[in-house]
Amino acid sequence: MPSTPTSAPDVLISEVGPRDGLQSVKATMPTAHKCQWITALHAAGLREIEVASFVPAQLLPQMADAAEVVRHALTLPGLTVMALVPNLRGAQAALAAGVHKLTIPVSASAAHSLANVRKTREAMVEEVRNIVALRDAQAPHTQVEAGISTAFGCTLQGLVPEEDVLWLAAQCARAGVGEVGLSDTTGYANPSQVRRLFRRLRAEIGNKTGAAHMHNTRGLGLANCLAAFDEGVRTFDASQGGLGGCPYAPGASGNVVTEDLVFMLEAMGVSTGVDIAKLIAAREALKAGLPGEPLYGMTPDAGLPKGFSQGARHA
Amino acid sequence: MPSTPTSAPDVLISEVGPRDGLQSVKATMPTAHKCQWITALHAAGLREIEVASFVPAQLLPQMADAAEVVRHALTLPGLTVMALVPNLRGAQAALAAGVHKLTIPVSASAAHSLANVRKTREAMVEEVRNIVALRDAQAPHTQVEAGISTAFGCTLQGLVPEEDVLWLAAQCARAGVGEVGLSDTTGYANPSQVRRLFRRLRAEIGNKTGAAHMHNTRGLGLANCLAAFDEGVRTFDASQGGLGGCPYAPGASGNVVTEDLVFMLEAMGVSTGVDIAKLIAAREALKAGLPGEPLYGMTPDAGLPKGFSQGARHA
Repeated sequence: MPSTPTSAPDVLISEVGPRDGLQSVKATMPTAHKCQWITALHAAGLREIEVASFVPAQLLPQMADAAEVVRHALTLPGLTVMALVPNLRGAQAALAAGVHKLTIPVSASAAHSLANVRKTREAMVEEVRNIVALRDAQAPHTQVEAGISTAFGCTLQGLVPEEDVLWLAAQCARAGVGEVGLSDTTGYANPSQVRRLFRRLRAEIGNKTGAAHMHNTRGLGLANCLAAFDEGVRTFDASQGGLGGCPYAPGASGNVVTEDLVFMLEAMGVSTGVDIAKLIAAREALKAGLPGEPLYGMTPDAGLPKGFSQGARHA
Repeated sequence: MPSTPTSAPDVLISEVGPRDGLQSVKATMPTAHKCQWITALHAAGLREIEVASFVPAQLLPQMADAAEVVRHALTLPGLTVMALVPNLRGAQAALAAGVHKLTIPVSASAAHSLANVRKTREAMVEEVRNIVALRDAQAPHTQVEAGISTAFGCTLQGLVPEEDVLWLAAQCARAGVGEVGLSDTTGYANPSQVRRLFRRLRAEIGNKTGAAHMHNTRGLGLANCLAAFDEGVRTFDASQGGLGGCPYAPGASGNVVTEDLVFMLEAMGVSTGVDIAKLIAAREALKAGLPGEPLYGMTPDAGLPKGFSQGARHA
C-alpha cells in the first residue's frame, strides 16, 4: 500500500509508457489492450498517465486510436489524463477528446526541433501561444505543460547551451503554460548538470518548474532523478518496463523504468502513491498487448528486498 | 585522456571484476586471459584492481591461480594490487604472493557471516586482528582494509541494524585496518540510507572511512554511488561489465558497471584517471577469456554522447 494512503504522496509519478513507450515500438498495441494496461496502471495507484499523442495517423499509426484511449482513461477515478500534442491541430483534437492536461514538446536543440516537429524553436513558441489561446477559449480548466526536449544535449547537434534551454523555458512560461519540465530526450544528462539546470530553471520561472523526464540510455536515469529530487523536483516521468525513446533522436532509447524509480523513492521513504506489487503485476497487461517486446526493469527481475515494506519510512 | 593527467584524480575507481566478477561466474577464466584482461584494465588507467581472492581452490576453483595472477599484476607500474582474504590462512598466502593491499570481508549480518565465512561476527573481528598482526610482523607496508558486507540489508536475515554496522566498523578500525568500506552485497541499498550510513560511519571512524561497494541488483547502483559521493566518499568499487555478486547471498548479482560509473563521474566533471574509450576496449579481453558470458553496461551499448570529451569539466 502507499506510504500515506490518506494524504497526498510526496511525489507525482507521471506514467508515459502508453504514449512515449508505445509510439517508439514497431508493433501497434490493440486499443483494448491499451485500455486494460492503463486500467492496471491506475489500479497500481498512478494518478497521471500520458495516454496518447494526437498526431497524424500516417506518421504514428500506433497512436491512431488516441481519442478512444482517452475516452476510456477518463472513466478512471482520480486520474489526470494527459496527451502529447505537437501542434495546434493536435491540441484541437485532444481538447475535443476531453483530456485534462496537454503536454507540448519544445526542443531546445534547433536541429532536433526541425527534425521532430519541422519548426524552428521560435515558431514552436508561437505554436505554444496558439495552443494556450485555444485552451483559454475552449477548455479553460485544461492544464498545459511544456517539456523542453533535448535539454541536456542532442544526438544531432551535440551540445545544447543552457542559455537556450532557459530562454526557451521562459518563453513558454510567458506564453501561458502552467509548467515547464526538462527532458533528457537523448540520455545525455549527468547528475551535476541536472542539479545545475533545474536550479537555474527555478531561478528563471519559479513555481512553474515542472517534471524531470529522464532516460536511462547510459544507465544514469535513476541517478539523474535523484539529482532532480535533491533540487526540489517533485514530478517524475517514467515508463513501465522502460519502453520508450524518441524516433527522431537516433539511439536515444529507454525511459526511466517506473518500477525501479518507484522502488528507489519508496525505499528512501518518499511516498509515490504507487503500490509496487500492483505495478509489477501491471506488466502482464503490457506483455499481453505487446507480445515479444523486451521489457526492462531490475526490481521486477530481482524482487523486493527481504523484509521490505512500503510505508516504513527510512529517511 | 584523464581530465587531469598530471595531478591525482578526484576519485579512485577500484576494479573488482577479476575477483568479485570471476568468482561468481561458472566458467573459470584461464590464467593467461586473466593477465591480459588485468593488463587492459591497467592500460585504461585503473590504478587499483582486486585481482584475486586467496581461498581454498576446492571452494572457488576460479581463484586457484591467485598467486600467479598477483605475480603478473605486480609488474604493472603504478598499480595497487589488491586481493581478498577471508581469513588468516588466505592472508598468509596473499602476503607471500606480495600483494600491496588486503581486503577482508566482514559481514554485518550474523546469518550472512556464518554462511559466507562460517564464523560469528565477533570471531571475524578476532581474525581481522590476527591478520593485522601478521601484516605488522611480515609486511608492514601492505595496506589492510575491511569491507562491511551486507551493510544495507541481507537476503538471509532481511534488516541489518545500522548500529550493528557501526559497531562492527569501529571494531575493525580498532583492530588496526586502515580503511573500512561499506558493501551493498545484496543490492538492497537506497540513496537515503547510503547517505545516512556513510555520514554515521564517518562520525564513528573519521578518515578511516573507506570505499562504497554498490551492486546494481535493483537498478540503483549509480544513484547509490552518487549518494556516497555527496557524502564525501572518494573510492568506489566497480566491475567491468557488471560481473559479480555473492555466491552466498542468493539473487544478489550485479556489481556496479565500471564503464557506466566512470562515464557518470567524468560527465559530472569528476576525474577518475580512467580513459573511457580504453576501458570499453578492455571488454574485448574480458570477452575473450569468458566467451558467451553476458556483459552489462549501458554506456558501452549506447556509445558516448555526441561531442562528449573527457576532461571538459562541466561541474
